[in-house]
Amino acid sequence: MGRTKTVHGGLDAAELRHYDLRVEDVLDFSANINPLGPSPLVREAAAAADLSAYPDRDSLALREALAERLGVPIDHLLVGNGSTELIHILARSRLRSGGRCLIFAPTFGEYEAAAGAEVHCLTATEAHGFRWPIGEAVAAIRELQPALVFLCNPNNPTGLYLERDAVEQLAAAAGEHGLLLLDDAYASLADSPWDAMPLLGNGNVAILRSMTKDHALAGVRLGYLAAQPEVIDGARALQHAWSVNAVAQAAGLAALADEAHLAAACEVIREGKGYLWAELDTLGLTVSPSATNFLLVKVGDAGGVRRALLRRGLAVRDCASFGLPEHIRVAVRRKPECARLIEALREVLADG
Amino acid sequence: MGRTKTVHGGLDAAELRHYDLRVEDVLDFSANINPLGPSPLVREAAAAADLSAYPDRDSLALREALAERLGVPIDHLLVGNGSTELIHILARSRLRSGGRCLIFAPTFGEYEAAAGAEVHCLTATEAHGFRWPIGEAVAAIRELQPALVFLCNPNNPTGLYLERDAVEQLAAAAGEHGLLLLDDAYASLADSPWDAMPLLGNGNVAILRSMTKDHALAGVRLGYLAAQPEVIDGARALQHAWSVNAVAQAAGLAALADEAHLAAACEVIREGKGYLWAELDTLGLTVSPSATNFLLVKVGDAGGVRRALLRRGLAVRDCASFGLPEHIRVAVRRKPECARLIEALREVLADG
Repeated sequence: MGRTKTVHGGLDAAELRHYDLRVEDVLDFSANINPLGPSPLVREAAAAADLSAYPDRDSLALREALAERLGVPIDHLLVGNGSTELIHILARSRLRSGGRCLIFAPTFGEYEAAAGAEVHCLTATEAHGFRWPIGEAVAAIRELQPALVFLCNPNNPTGLYLERDAVEQLAAAAGEHGLLLLDDAYASLADSPWDAMPLLGNGNVAILRSMTKDHALAGVRLGYLAAQPEVIDGARALQHAWSVNAVAQAAGLAALADEAHLAAACEVIREGKGYLWAELDTLGLTVSPSATNFLLVKVGDAGGVRRALLRRGLAVRDCASFGLPEHIRVAVRRKPECARLIEALREVLADG
Repeated sequence: MGRTKTVHGGLDAAELRHYDLRVEDVLDFSANINPLGPSPLVREAAAAADLSAYPDRDSLALREALAERLGVPIDHLLVGNGSTELIHILARSRLRSGGRCLIFAPTFGEYEAAAGAEVHCLTATEAHGFRWPIGEAVAAIRELQPALVFLCNPNNPTGLYLERDAVEQLAAAAGEHGLLLLDDAYASLADSPWDAMPLLGNGNVAILRSMTKDHALAGVRLGYLAAQPEVIDGARALQHAWSVNAVAQAAGLAALADEAHLAAACEVIREGKGYLWAELDTLGLTVSPSATNFLLVKVGDAGGVRRALLRRGLAVRDCASFGLPEHIRVAVRRKPECARLIEALREVLADG
């Protein structure tokens, strides 16, 4: 558990104050969230939630809806205060006797923050298009025998999306004593998603889903874990009472019921991404192929570019904390918003 | 960290379903919450909160408002996902090297759930009016040298409210290596509250405040810890990112700004409590003297009485999990609602 604060996207209240900016003045490309925001049905459900009564500690109604939608028994599901809580309690539960942990890097910083002591990273390099060599990865897992393997797929921040076959090879290598945590937070916003849920049948795969990105619920916090009951029970024993608030439960239920909203968001992302990709290329910048709703862009001095954009009211993610100090990560928003980013980036690059 | 679920008040979705009841059909006396519900200003602020943007990880605006209101520096404050999260991370932070823990019992079950292995209880008895003998308690603390002492004041479920002088004696006994966690969740709803915040000056006292009871925010989860910066930093290092949702932060800020709402609730509680106390006495039931917004009532078979009341659409807290199987705990609500409870209780006792 790191004592220092893990770096993430999203706006920082203290930093905005430093730049004399208000949250409402900033267009946020730094958090990879549904560009349409929450569905109107979600807003209604959230506003109608009872603020004063304790939330259901079992998130029963939401788990029932998820079970039906995913075709997974209800005892295979645990709802969390954002997927970040689930990462931490799952890691504590699996690594309490001190096992090793393997992280497919560069990736979301909370895996390492949650993993504790013996963390090994298998780091994809720019030279290889941020692809992990699967054969080498399989050999590394067999040799290391980690108790827990973290794989974000599609990966944050590279956008790389492994096919089912590759993931199955990794799961097989992990063996019966190693758990592969597949975080597919960005799959539902991908161009061509594949359903990871059948991988639960392998026994040693757990699937983590954030509902904060695809359903734009980052403010209320919501995620879930699907896994075998013994994995669920281990994590659940470390979850404190009433961890998932009532607004999140109500919003999550409403979000599941509005598939059209998510489909509309995917269309907006498709259009915005095509535009951004072409324009970034025109600016002479290298963009990594991304399967989902954000782009990794090589800009040189990422920290400097980020600050220059922020002064113009546009937030992007400096990827230095991912070990990529020359890259920024840009979430895809509506095309007119993307046009504002391209315009500002053109100015910043000209100034630099 | 118990593998079994700690028992608490509040309605249980699965149990209500068993009795074929809907949440909206039940009058809940089992959770000790402000009988007026949240202030209208809180409802407005919650409805206006941004569901889609990440919450401020530092709860900066809320901590600034708390700092000003409490007269405490901002680095002495940590906001949590309900006070329950703070109990768990503080206990993990203080007890990681395996120190002993002392709990003033009977009390809120999450202290023991959070404390882990070596837990000692100093249990007040009915024979002594649920008062702890302070002299013996001081001697026990000196002998045991616990790393962490939990004291709920006013105490849940007994309503006992120690004076400042007694708490200071306990803090002094804990010494510089023992931390006294004073949970005064129910102080602001008490008849004659005293301000515990100056006890922070003792160095080894941490003060825990729930905002879910007095401000009726149990659904969104909110609490805070006030302590010396090294205590705060230790707990904060174990708090996962974005633990406190944006609706809770906005609601908390609005709640602090509406003192009149809390004052009105205290008046409603005063009236309801006087009525309940007199009527319960008329029914021949023994009621423990309570300084705050709930009453501990001796009914005989608490489980049976609770179930009989629930079938009538009234929820009370069976105190068996506190080690008091003959007692129920009743939160004070508006007088007409209390009258419904008295009527139902009269029937139930007559049936029994």
